[in-house]
Amino acid sequence: MNIHSHRTGRLRETMSARGWDAVIVSSSDPHNSEYPAPRWKTIEWLSGFTGEAADLVITADEAGLWADSRYFIQAAAELEGSGITLFRKGLPGVPPYQEWLAGKAATVAFDGLCFTESQTEDLHEAFSKVGKQVEMVSVPDLAGDIWDGRPPIPVTPVITLSEENVGESRYSKLTDLRKYMLMQECDAVFLSALDDIAWLLNIRGSDIEYNPYVISYLLVTQSEAVWFVKKDSPADYEDTKDSYRELEMDGVTIASYDGAGDYISALSSDDGDFSVLVDQDDLNHEMFSMLGRILGPENVKTGHLPVKLRKAIKNRVEIEWMRTAFMEDGVAMENFLYWLEKTVGAGIHITEWDASQKLTSFRAAIPGYRGNSFANISAGGANAALPHYSVPESGSAGVGPARLYLVDSGGQYIFGTTDITRTVPLGECTYLEKEDYTLVLKGMIDLSMAVFPRGTAGCHLDVLARNALWSRRRNFGHGTGHGIGFYLGVHEGPQSIRQNFNPQPLLPGMITSNEPGIYRENMHGIRHENVLLCVEDTSNGFGDWLAFETLTVCHIDTSAVIPDLMTADEITWLNDYNRSVFERLSGRLFPEVSDWLRVKTQPIPVRH
Amino acid sequence: MNIHSHRTGRLRETMSARGWDAVIVSSSDPHNSEYPAPRWKTIEWLSGFTGEAADLVITADEAGLWADSRYFIQAAAELEGSGITLFRKGLPGVPPYQEWLAGKAATVAFDGLCFTESQTEDLHEAFSKVGKQVEMVSVPDLAGDIWDGRPPIPVTPVITLSEENVGESRYSKLTDLRKYMLMQECDAVFLSALDDIAWLLNIRGSDIEYNPYVISYLLVTQSEAVWFVKKDSPADYEDTKDSYRELEMDGVTIASYDGAGDYISALSSDDGDFSVLVDQDDLNHEMFSMLGRILGPENVKTGHLPVKLRKAIKNRVEIEWMRTAFMEDGVAMENFLYWLEKTVGAGIHITEWDASQKLTSFRAAIPGYRGNSFANISAGGANAALPHYSVPESGSAGVGPARLYLVDSGGQYIFGTTDITRTVPLGECTYLEKEDYTLVLKGMIDLSMAVFPRGTAGCHLDVLARNALWSRRRNFGHGTGHGIGFYLGVHEGPQSIRQNFNPQPLLPGMITSNEPGIYRENMHGIRHENVLLCVEDTSNGFGDWLAFETLTVCHIDTSAVIPDLMTADEITWLNDYNRSVFERLSGRLFPEVSDWLRVKTQPIPVRH
Repeated sequence: MNIHSHRTGRLRETMSARGWDAVIVSSSDPHNSEYPAPRWKTIEWLSGFTGEAADLVITADEAGLWADSRYFIQAAAELEGSGITLFRKGLPGVPPYQEWLAGKAATVAFDGLCFTESQTEDLHEAFSKVGKQVEMVSVPDLAGDIWDGRPPIPVTPVITLSEENVGESRYSKLTDLRKYMLMQECDAVFLSALDDIAWLLNIRGSDIEYNPYVISYLLVTQSEAVWFVKKDSPADYEDTKDSYRELEMDGVTIASYDGAGDYISALSSDDGDFSVLVDQDDLNHEMFSMLGRILGPENVKTGHLPVKLRKAIKNRVEIEWMRTAFMEDGVAMENFLYWLEKTVGAGIHITEWDASQKLTSFRAAIPGYRGNSFANISAGGANAALPHYSVPESGSAGVGPARLYLVDSGGQYIFGTTDITRTVPLGECTYLEKEDYTLVLKGMIDLSMAVFPRGTAGCHLDVLARNALWSRRRNFGHGTGHGIGFYLGVHEGPQSIRQNFNPQPLLPGMITSNEPGIYRENMHGIRHENVLLCVEDTSNGFGDWLAFETLTVCHIDTSAVIPDLMTADEITWLNDYNRSVFERLSGRLFPEVSDWLRVKTQPIPVRH
Repeated sequence: MNIHSHRTGRLRETMSARGWDAVIVSSSDPHNSEYPAPRWKTIEWLSGFTGEAADLVITADEAGLWADSRYFIQAAAELEGSGITLFRKGLPGVPPYQEWLAGKAATVAFDGLCFTESQTEDLHEAFSKVGKQVEMVSVPDLAGDIWDGRPPIPVTPVITLSEENVGESRYSKLTDLRKYMLMQECDAVFLSALDDIAWLLNIRGSDIEYNPYVISYLLVTQSEAVWFVKKDSPADYEDTKDSYRELEMDGVTIASYDGAGDYISALSSDDGDFSVLVDQDDLNHEMFSMLGRILGPENVKTGHLPVKLRKAIKNRVEIEWMRTAFMEDGVAMENFLYWLEKTVGAGIHITEWDASQKLTSFRAAIPGYRGNSFANISAGGANAALPHYSVPESGSAGVGPARLYLVDSGGQYIFGTTDITRTVPLGECTYLEKEDYTLVLKGMIDLSMAVFPRGTAGCHLDVLARNALWSRRRNFGHGTGHGIGFYLGVHEGPQSIRQNFNPQPLLPGMITSNEPGIYRENMHGIRHENVLLCVEDTSNGFGDWLAFETLTVCHIDTSAVIPDLMTADEITWLNDYNRSVFERLSGRLFPEVSDWLRVKTQPIPVRH
């Protein structure tokens, strides 16, 4: 019996005492965050599984963890001895947990703080589809009582960003939101998505790894903006105090993180018909229900808020800073790639972990660096065939012997967020490796060259990044592009470039990644990723035309390219891109790095 | 005061007598047909407008016709003197008719036979969105009383198709539908879409121009199939009698067209819980309401029926016949294109109408020809810039002087339905014409060459037909591809290839057109259209792959192609295609036509 089976045993005691037949545990936090703080890593604490996006279901005598294909191998290892069965999501014959559970439990508890209202409704529907009567009990902080030493809600310094940093004052952003509230005929908006709040208030923190957020809720009415944040906790950082003072001068009230309910009760007691608009895809079930109890369910209106779209459309100041961020990031990347090639070339043994650390050190040297935007993926050879490979600190593979090395990484800077993937040939590649390298590159270039009429969505363009692969019956199993925040999350909506029917058109000012790949188990993995800014092109009798500007400034290695597989346009694009990288960066590099880059960016011949 | 203002005047008398403030007239029939029979061309009778897909709204002192951009010029001319205002749909400042009407009318009558249930619900929602209380009154055959000499419901001979014709017996199709009914737990299915009924019963008629349908409803239960058709009318054709006899031997009951209500009443009186499944996107509001009154609304289940998808996935027999149909059609097309080039070349004056008639005569010579699948589009020069140009019988333009001539046409054969567009250079083209010709052709070829994983939908592939145009900031304003029936409608669903988010994946056996184009007002119009069969390609570790087989067998003129704009792959495709057309057709052509085709299909040089 290991520590995890001991913990699930304690949870089962609670279940038995409270009459629950089963418990469902989610991977998220009360703010539907992509990366939750340690306090909400309940699945890890109960089961030992450290991956993302899983579901853990525990009954009196059974327990199952539903993990997706990224984690099949890792989960099997981590669950060993826990008494928890691994269910491999998506494999034939593996039932969804709702179906698995439906016959076993009449009363099911879940932590309504860590399920959004939409997810809760979906859960209800899934149970009713399976045709079983299941009573669902929402229990906030479900495992809190038995979790000894549970991490507290994180508190980190809060900084503010000025109009020079972000191009628009919080006053302007709040005014715009208030106009929307007038149109929607609601008295208030209640926000819970941490990136939306950070964007709206022009504040940043570091409560969550990789994400510069402050854990909080925000209530906006026509006359007030009330920020529910951990003010009572030992947040006596100087930065935070200054930030609070600045926010209060701008009319933002600082209130206690858990005080939203009381505050809204007081507001609505003055106005019996007080209505609030929330996004049911963001807000957790507990807060949603609480609003319904206080205001009456008819006064809780649901819908998407305009904040996400406004946040995704970067203004001129943000765009200029993002160009700077990608330039700075490019300097770090070129320094790293130079170091990598020289070190491996000199026969010095370095591991994937060493390389990852070295890359971070180059980024950390950039003024304004605030951390990485996600965990570096540093993977050689077959390890790169795992799209979400996580480098172990000790025992990681050597980089040198692999013919292809993949590095996917990004920085958080006070002036922007970056994301880049390069796949680097470190030795003579096989023909298949070169072919894969070239086909993936063609896809990245074809999407970069796209010109499209206003109204086009990402799913219309996705095939451009895949067609070179598809024509040779190859493909990749992830999306092509995700939105990227401005010193915010490296993943943000509402736009995307993938096969899913996401109706959001790509609009000028949106920043989206472009990252086709190919993954061959036990062989190699290749991904090329640049980041694209959507820009206005021209207007004519056929419509308003949009195009992409590539923000990423880092050369693409041509040694593994098979020119015969590329069109003249594609080769011209590649040569122009590499030349522009050299021209923009050479003055920022040490002479030996600059000389090396001049050679690496030599054009390859265009066919005529 | 013209005849139409006289007719609207008579309608206004009815309106006044019955207390209606306004009347909405639709362009459809009780079966939601694309082309209604003359009986239901109420808009034409009231207003003089002969185009498709319009809405006519009449109040006590105003009247408006909402037409789309295809008809702006034509509608303005046809409405002259009618007292009806033309509203140009889609132009800035033109309100939807619901909005225009909302303030003017409290009681609105519409012909519930000619609105589907979904359209009726949309109408309700549109009025409520505008924030006005509008009472909607459904009045079957709304204008019937005042329409002197209104055409009757058409009655034409009914033929049956054998298993050798269509590859599956009606017994097998009905059995499959009955299995679906068991799964859906409904006692009956009630069908109203004429192509679905024709497919399910393996019958054809010619009640509607271009569409080989029989106007009818069909009720299917586990033990019965009852076909409600105009049996009481003078349908004493020998064919029809034989067909009825065959159907009855197969267990299909022939009942009166307007007898569905009584029949279902009788059925349900034996079973108080009798439930019926209908498609609310097909069934008209009157029939839908009637079923609700008879069975109770809770027993009228709504959803898509599996018939449309089964119909779209052609079986091996249908595919083999469709290949034959396109071969036969190709012979007619090549004879026509030869005649056209020789006649124009000899300096003989021919009009667009003459050319259209000649083409029809070539098709009519094919054994099994049953008519055209839509009205030929035969357009020279600037006329071709109108995507739905309708050739006038008298006074049509001469073909000769135009540099580019566009012909879009198709045949109905007892063994299949065809659709093809060719744009033919009849003189030395300008550079812009050649460039447009080449870019459109590239799009058609790029889509033809697509290979894609199972699960891909048309909207994912649509950009392949547009990208060559988009990259030069050109586009076309219609979809790229529509499904095509087997001796059924030339337009059918559920699949499509266009920008709309239609989630239906393309599946092996589906037949879809591939018809990019470009239209320059007062200059020229170009469209190239082949028809594609979706086929299985191969399976590998990356997935199950699908591809297209081109069914169309008619050469593509290379004289206007600019080879420098094409990739080597595209030129190879074009040369291979033209060579295969010659090889397949030459034995079927007169020697002089075959010799001419040999020259027309000479390969153009591939760049290396």
